[in-house]
Amino acid sequence: MSPAPGTGGGPAIILVQPQMSENMGTAARAMMNCGLTDLRLVRPRESWLQERAIRAASGAEAVLHAAREYERTEDAIADLTHVYATTGRDRYMIKQVVTPRLCATEMRERISAGYGCGVMFGPERTGLENDDIVLADTVLTVPLNPVHCSLNLAQAVLLVGYEWFQVAGEVSAEASMTKGAAGRLANKQELLFFFEHLERELDACGFLRLPDKRPTMVRNLRNLFQRADLTEQEVRTLHGVVTELATLRTKRSKG
Amino acid sequence: MSPAPGTGGGPAIILVQPQMSENMGTAARAMMNCGLTDLRLVRPRESWLQERAIRAASGAEAVLHAAREYERTEDAIADLTHVYATTGRDRYMIKQVVTPRLCATEMRERISAGYGCGVMFGPERTGLENDDIVLADTVLTVPLNPVHCSLNLAQAVLLVGYEWFQVAGEVSAEASMTKGAAGRLANKQELLFFFEHLERELDACGFLRLPDKRPTMVRNLRNLFQRADLTEQEVRTLHGVVTELATLRTKRSKG
Repeated sequence: MSPAPGTGGGPAIILVQPQMSENMGTAARAMMNCGLTDLRLVRPRESWLQERAIRAASGAEAVLHAAREYERTEDAIADLTHVYATTGRDRYMIKQVVTPRLCATEMRERISAGYGCGVMFGPERTGLENDDIVLADTVLTVPLNPVHCSLNLAQAVLLVGYEWFQVAGEVSAEASMTKGAAGRLANKQELLFFFEHLERELDACGFLRLPDKRPTMVRNLRNLFQRADLTEQEVRTLHGVVTELATLRTKRSKG
Repeated sequence: MSPAPGTGGGPAIILVQPQMSENMGTAARAMMNCGLTDLRLVRPRESWLQERAIRAASGAEAVLHAAREYERTEDAIADLTHVYATTGRDRYMIKQVVTPRLCATEMRERISAGYGCGVMFGPERTGLENDDIVLADTVLTVPLNPVHCSLNLAQAVLLVGYEWFQVAGEVSAEASMTKGAAGRLANKQELLFFFEHLERELDACGFLRLPDKRPTMVRNLRNLFQRADLTEQEVRTLHGVVTELATLRTKRSKG
């Protein structure tokens, strides 16, 4: 049996809308430096297999050849359980913020418990959009000189990978999460199905009716549920809650 | 009074024979990311102030403008007390080897005690030559995937600077070295004067007469003294020892 996604070869590296093929190459090189192999590309602007990318990978072209392309960020993280969003500046979302070092320790614990992890990086100049950050559980920020903190894509991947590599070798008996009693944690696909279900019903009932407030409300709701580290069983329960509430409302409006 | 060299703005970054002006620019950017400003260039092949370098520095051109050029590595490190040599592979020298993390902790202690530190990086493809490594006190190696561990210059500078930045903020009362009683540690210039004095006398007496063995013997001797963390007073004592021994020999040969 092959290991669960985002576990065997360490966390997945998810590049959202990378612009230049060279940068995909140098990111692949940085991954290989740190023993990472699971590269996922969401709407890359250029091909990650053209010569410029392969040359920039400098021996790490196996990572590029194995890379997978996705149309939506949601699909790229669907099989993962815990996702980090790298940002350079405060996005004013209620999410836990960690350093690469803490992220590495957390991921090691999650991955050794069989839960797939991933780290998302945004486009070169603009960084991740808020809609992508909302999909993440935790924000990752690199502590650097505040007056000059911009990193290029490969360097950001390298720092995250470097910290991963420093802890990946350390095997520890206590590195296991409460898995048995509470049931398995929900993966992103299961969570997203629930979010969509909830938002559909909230749209239907008029709760999200103000168009200029809707995006913020949706984000706040998703962040709130995401922080809860829901199990798959809990997500099913929540589906039931939403369905029941919606049915009740339908009945009432009919009655 | 301005701080001692290699202390106020953190450790000095010494690039030995950097080849491409872009790489000096990206190294400057990585330094600025980590709050480092003291850049020293030994025989750079291209200018660090041409447009390609400035563009690659991406906002960190102040570091390039303040950079100093040296003809010899010895001169670039003359005012420092403790120097690290970055290497990707084992050079079979009897020197302490540290990770960037341990290096950062050590440098913080030394620098807070007023001793200038520096980290040397070799040319892009070939790395530092043994003659430059001998000048260092300690070897620095980044723990990375052994099957793919080559880093580009800026990335190597970034990882060292990143670890420095992580510890630089931490102020600690116990971070002071035994300075008073033992006297001030010798700087590189003082050490090198002593090495040259010693080797001149060893040449004169025929100890280093076999040309194919000379380089290795010189290296071993320098490494041996370097590991001792000599104080300036001890170096003066050693000068005296060598002078005395040489005089004795001269007297005897005359007598």
